[in-house]
Amino acid sequence: MADKPVTGAGLRGQSAGSTALCTVGKTGSGLTYRGFDIKELAEKARFEEVAYLLLKGKLPNQAELDYYIDRLKRLRGLPDALKTVLEQIPRDAHPMDVMRTGTSMLGNLETEESFDQQQDVADRLLAVLPSIICYWYRFSHDGVRIDTQTDDVSVGGHFLNMLRGEPASELHARVMNVSLILYAEHEFNASTFTARVCASTLSDMHSCVTGAIGSLRGPLHGGANEAAMAMIEQWTSPDEAESKIMGMLERKDKIMGFGHAIYRESDPRNEIIKEWSRKLSEDVGDNVLYPVSERVEEVMWREKKLFCNADFFHASAYHFMDIPTKLFTPIFVMSRVTGWAAHVFEQRANNRIIRPSADYTGPEKSAWVPIEARD
Amino acid sequence: MADKPVTGAGLRGQSAGSTALCTVGKTGSGLTYRGFDIKELAEKARFEEVAYLLLKGKLPNQAELDYYIDRLKRLRGLPDALKTVLEQIPRDAHPMDVMRTGTSMLGNLETEESFDQQQDVADRLLAVLPSIICYWYRFSHDGVRIDTQTDDVSVGGHFLNMLRGEPASELHARVMNVSLILYAEHEFNASTFTARVCASTLSDMHSCVTGAIGSLRGPLHGGANEAAMAMIEQWTSPDEAESKIMGMLERKDKIMGFGHAIYRESDPRNEIIKEWSRKLSEDVGDNVLYPVSERVEEVMWREKKLFCNADFFHASAYHFMDIPTKLFTPIFVMSRVTGWAAHVFEQRANNRIIRPSADYTGPEKSAWVPIEARD
Repeated sequence: MADKPVTGAGLRGQSAGSTALCTVGKTGSGLTYRGFDIKELAEKARFEEVAYLLLKGKLPNQAELDYYIDRLKRLRGLPDALKTVLEQIPRDAHPMDVMRTGTSMLGNLETEESFDQQQDVADRLLAVLPSIICYWYRFSHDGVRIDTQTDDVSVGGHFLNMLRGEPASELHARVMNVSLILYAEHEFNASTFTARVCASTLSDMHSCVTGAIGSLRGPLHGGANEAAMAMIEQWTSPDEAESKIMGMLERKDKIMGFGHAIYRESDPRNEIIKEWSRKLSEDVGDNVLYPVSERVEEVMWREKKLFCNADFFHASAYHFMDIPTKLFTPIFVMSRVTGWAAHVFEQRANNRIIRPSADYTGPEKSAWVPIEARD
Repeated sequence: MADKPVTGAGLRGQSAGSTALCTVGKTGSGLTYRGFDIKELAEKARFEEVAYLLLKGKLPNQAELDYYIDRLKRLRGLPDALKTVLEQIPRDAHPMDVMRTGTSMLGNLETEESFDQQQDVADRLLAVLPSIICYWYRFSHDGVRIDTQTDDVSVGGHFLNMLRGEPASELHARVMNVSLILYAEHEFNASTFTARVCASTLSDMHSCVTGAIGSLRGPLHGGANEAAMAMIEQWTSPDEAESKIMGMLERKDKIMGFGHAIYRESDPRNEIIKEWSRKLSEDVGDNVLYPVSERVEEVMWREKKLFCNADFFHASAYHFMDIPTKLFTPIFVMSRVTGWAAHVFEQRANNRIIRPSADYTGPEKSAWVPIEARD
């Protein structure tokens, strides 16, 4: 990237390091994890297999995958002190604040004492993050203390089971699996870059992931699927959606779930999640939300040549599975923790502290004025 | 900085934005906050005045300063839920994990709902961070639940009073004042840059500060004064120190507290804190630690032309005030939170999401292999 112009603002187009984990938009529309095309992964892989690929560097064989799935199952429990902390967090808290605090608290109880433990810490976070959010959610909303140590095979199934108190259907577990694969990794996005800056000081894994969760919380990063949901659920027909969208475009309102900082032609994740949203729509007998979403997609392309990104059809897909809108971004965390941790490993393996410069715009020299002489 | 070569690793010399807060090493040795020379600030200002300068943009007049000091005093209390959380954290936890978790938990209880609240949230953090660390420290180490709402005028005096259970001497309060001024701000260092990356997603202040604490925790960033202390306290005379340092240099051991990523000739903070360390040394009748520190400084310059940075004489200064070594980096947090918050304000006022690129070093294309055919 050294031949690109230095643009300053937002470091756009400037290289901040190297990675073997991911390519984003190298052909204008592609996404690969360690060279594997996202479409192939979403069709053929389990999320736990993709997590293994990102964290351990290769696809597991059957024995390795069986062992890994079993290992993750055994790492779902919450220490008592962490449960007590989660019980202190009020019902109306921001769920991303809960994820951030739960991860930070875990760092006090199960501190990464040496980088030799980094794989174990990453596996533990991958297994326990769904427990953290669901324990808090069910306690603060339903007044129950759930047992997070369930027998579900998959991370997505574990989440849905804890959330609803019954094992997920095959269809729902399948959609969660695809969704977690699609969100797992995306190169030097702002939350991953946060994790790498933190890692570059040689800080611990819990600090890196805690920081990344804080960045993903921002409405310019995570949260687009929540915003898309808030928008589309207002409309009762495709025609109403079209007229409202036209009004929003006229007023230059921000419409979430469209376009992308890197992709130019399309987001390869969209067609995948869109197809699953369609299947879920049929499954629940919906004849509003999916047609509304499709119409919004059509209008945005027709009027602005803007395409749906990964977030737009995730909104309806999660909604059809009865997942509360405010838990959409925490699901993103459960998935992306694999990418964050893999980037922390990379940063540690070839590290220089990330310490850029700034353009100074302040006064050259300020003269001291004694306090009694100040305005 | 756009005329400098793009170096890639660690973004060294690359501009990642603009700031009016600080210059570091523009003349090879200088440090200014909003144009004011660090030496003048350390000699003439109160830390609360410097915090006001960084956060509100100008030096306060007497009425404004009186009001601000009173305001900070009233913001020292801990919510019950936060106390309960701190009581869950074990005695042997890393104190920076406590700071990170306390800040994150506060974000659940006193969420920044709008950027209109940013000044209030920053003031609250500035006032309450000493309470967080001391409440945990005294509870986990001494079994007491302290009242954090004391009558001390200064942030530094408040900290020492809670830590020891008695008001600080004038000398100690003065040294804490200087120390907090010296650590308050330092341009785009890794923790501040973490805060800005987080802020660039338009996330909340607690997320930004929580992330920054996680980065400051790393041994390449904060913690140099703790490492310097661990080194010098082993030696009982200047001659022993010299011979051990010579051995360390021969073995190319890392010696903490010397040199700097930006400063080339000297760190302007060193001569200031060194003089206060000398005064404290006289005050306690020390004839080992200060002479040892001076000798180490001499040898490092003679042998390697390496100068002490801000951290080296902070080690002995804090030690003379009976501050436990593991609380050195949390003091850094109590101070730097002013710089972090001021940078978050700046980032928000002129924002573009910080999203750099990466050089891809992985496989171009990986072919899917069914699980039963894998090695």
